[in-house]
Amino acid sequence: MSKKMMAEFFGTYWLVFGGCGSAILAAGVANVGIGWLGVSLAFGLTVLTMAFAVGHISGGHFNPAVTLGLVVGGRHPAGELLPYWAAQVLGAITAAGTLYMVFSGTADFQGVGGFASNGFGDASPEKYGMMSALVIEIVLTAFFLIIILGATSSGAPAGFAPIAIGLALTLIHLISIPVTNTSVNPARSTGVALFADGPALSQLWLFWLAPLVGGALGAVIWKMMTTDD
Amino acid sequence: MSKKMMAEFFGTYWLVFGGCGSAILAAGVANVGIGWLGVSLAFGLTVLTMAFAVGHISGGHFNPAVTLGLVVGGRHPAGELLPYWAAQVLGAITAAGTLYMVFSGTADFQGVGGFASNGFGDASPEKYGMMSALVIEIVLTAFFLIIILGATSSGAPAGFAPIAIGLALTLIHLISIPVTNTSVNPARSTGVALFADGPALSQLWLFWLAPLVGGALGAVIWKMMTTDD
Amino acid sequence: MSKKMMAEFFGTYWLVFGGCGSAILAAGVANVGIGWLGVSLAFGLTVLTMAFAVGHISGGHFNPAVTLGLVVGGRHPAGELLPYWAAQVLGAITAAGTLYMVFSGTADFQGVGGFASNGFGDASPEKYGMMSALVIEIVLTAFFLIIILGATSSGAPAGFAPIAIGLALTLIHLISIPVTNTSVNPARSTGVALFADGPALSQLWLFWLAPLVGGALGAVIWKMMTTDD
Amino acid sequence: MSKKMMAEFFGTYWLVFGGCGSAILAAGVANVGIGWLGVSLAFGLTVLTMAFAVGHISGGHFNPAVTLGLVVGGRHPAGELLPYWAAQVLGAITAAGTLYMVFSGTADFQGVGGFASNGFGDASPEKYGMMSALVIEIVLTAFFLIIILGATSSGAPAGFAPIAIGLALTLIHLISIPVTNTSVNPARSTGVALFADGPALSQLWLFWLAPLVGGALGAVIWKMMTTDD
Repeated sequence: MSKKMMAEFFGTYWLVFGGCGSAILAAGVANVGIGWLGVSLAFGLTVLTMAFAVGHISGGHFNPAVTLGLVVGGRHPAGELLPYWAAQVLGAITAAGTLYMVFSGTADFQGVGGFASNGFGDASPEKYGMMSALVIEIVLTAFFLIIILGATSSGAPAGFAPIAIGLALTLIHLISIPVTNTSVNPARSTGVALFADGPALSQLWLFWLAPLVGGALGAVIWKMMTTDD
Repeated sequence: MSKKMMAEFFGTYWLVFGGCGSAILAAGVANVGIGWLGVSLAFGLTVLTMAFAVGHISGGHFNPAVTLGLVVGGRHPAGELLPYWAAQVLGAITAAGTLYMVFSGTADFQGVGGFASNGFGDASPEKYGMMSALVIEIVLTAFFLIIILGATSSGAPAGFAPIAIGLALTLIHLISIPVTNTSVNPARSTGVALFADGPALSQLWLFWLAPLVGGALGAVIWKMMTTDD
Repeated sequence: MSKKMMAEFFGTYWLVFGGCGSAILAAGVANVGIGWLGVSLAFGLTVLTMAFAVGHISGGHFNPAVTLGLVVGGRHPAGELLPYWAAQVLGAITAAGTLYMVFSGTADFQGVGGFASNGFGDASPEKYGMMSALVIEIVLTAFFLIIILGATSSGAPAGFAPIAIGLALTLIHLISIPVTNTSVNPARSTGVALFADGPALSQLWLFWLAPLVGGALGAVIWKMMTTDD
Repeated sequence: MSKKMMAEFFGTYWLVFGGCGSAILAAGVANVGIGWLGVSLAFGLTVLTMAFAVGHISGGHFNPAVTLGLVVGGRHPAGELLPYWAAQVLGAITAAGTLYMVFSGTADFQGVGGFASNGFGDASPEKYGMMSALVIEIVLTAFFLIIILGATSSGAPAGFAPIAIGLALTLIHLISIPVTNTSVNPARSTGVALFADGPALSQLWLFWLAPLVGGALGAVIWKMMTTDD
């Protein structure tokens, strides 16, 4: 496994272990639980921390929709798309497996439940339908790519991109956990769907389709906003 | 639409979609909801992220009161004031419309209610009157401009301005959501007022007047603080 | 009033208006209130934002204990100690007066209560006695000065000091609001004590004594840690 | 005591005083308490602030597992391992003693209880067993070292490491407080175990073993990810 693949594997592992892990282990505990605000912060900090740590190795995507958007935006070679996707999905699945091992070790364990998976309709935290899920996942992934492409462009101040990008993911979760439990990342959705009870696997198509469409759309908007007339 | 107008359109869209969206969708959910702390963080992160992404294109105002303050402070050409305002208001309305589409897609939908609009008197979250609303919106917008002008001045460390300005907006919300639901931004107030139930449209004048007065006042204070005697 | 005095006046105004204001207006509201976590963040962000904005004008102290510590540490001229203290206290009182004006404008107003003042014994949020108050205010102010002196020293990365110092104040509040409602800043304590119900004025001596002792102690520790043997 | 030892002593003191202190004093207070989210932020900010302040003196480890990982990763001289560990453990114990002094000064004092100590089984906040504790402490400490080694490597943007590392510790707490009350730091575990009621001392071996194994493992992974094939 090359260095780039290792960086994407461990980065996506961290995103799922930290983001989904905080949701599964710490969100709903009475009185002192971290709630959706804590989960939002956790997801963002996985990206902030690993983008500082290994961003200079692989670019720090940790997300198939980000890799696609960067290819569409002309910032990443198309030939690395599928290897990156493979490393990301493998990292996500491995993290979900580790989480299963930890979570099943509590004396109160009664099954994984939703296991922080993404969903719509009855599987949406606040019962949002498929159209709301599609719209919000597309819009949020598009802005995620606009922020990634903008914060790493030559016009932006150097060095700050991991802060802007990580906190963008925090913001995205603050908005959309009630709607879809927030994906914007097909690898993250896939990793936990393999372990979750409920319809996560049968709804997984939406959490590949919408983030990929949104990622490409964001790259197109960015190019429109920066190309000379 | 020029690049600058596009940047202001999408930036203000993001401010309303992220800030008002988190308030509408995620703030009040029982147990795990993000509360006013999460909403405050969301508003600030919309500006932090898009200022890093497109600040070098348009200046990253996303707010008519900011544009006015920068014109008064001699940092932005007066001739761009009205085009910027138009792009900002248009972005805010488009975001509010998208939020309506998402929010109306839940099985429990029973109307938009206040829709994160701003208000005073009975429309204030904690029933503050018009005078409290005027004072706090003027004071907070004035300090917002002092921070913007200071953090982007030549004496301040380069590159950090999006952090200072974004987190200033977070701070402003931590203080004043109970009073007016926090505007300091006439475009944000206008976007959601068009969709909200209640008196948001009839009270909209205050959320243009007070932020614009405050923005100009902040610029005047900044000039007093930095002009040689 | 010189530029430096104006910067200290407005900076300390912002610290009290934002920090104490968030506590008074937004902390205890049911369900969506920001709690002590939100208040801690607000205090820290007042310093982070104004240190970026006007730190290059006055040094960005906004706190008599900080000015004393910087004088003891050899970083600030002793002759400016009293003028800085005057500007800081004046800013704090003016902010408290503005807060009174806003807060008294709610339909439910029934007096200011503690008005975010500092206290010990029965006036401590969790009933901590005088000795606990003295110890924690001295220790926290000492570390505040170690962080200020360290983060602004030539060995530290340039530009980041407002982040380190502002978030240090957030951390200090996360620890000590239950004990004294957190001072570490005699100007902040004085501003609200003049308006508060209860024993705030009669206990104000401790919130001058302990922060000043702690500030000087922190400067001494810093010098021990950095002077060649 | 040399400068380096003083920096490690005071840095680890701050980590325990701030992190464990916020947990003991402020986490569980009704309505306005800071919860595990506030405690997570507090732990991270102790490292962020002191790494900016004294990182250039000692490296800013404040944690025996970090010192070991840096030795394994070839970034720190092996001969300083034991002196660093001694300074860290001494700082942690002194901080725990100060916390005891403050905490016992409330009118409601009825013993220290768990005193923010780490544990598994019945001593785990959510009753996770020994295997879950071992896995999560090893995984989290390994990633902590990957982030530390990565964010301080020559490829990463200069100056940002204290932000990445401090917020990594916040993230680690957001995930794992329910499982072990979060150690990843044998000095932190030792300091409070000496004062705590319950099985903290008899379980202390795990909170030396797992973080040290994890720290070394993280350094090995980092070397694999960066060594030319």
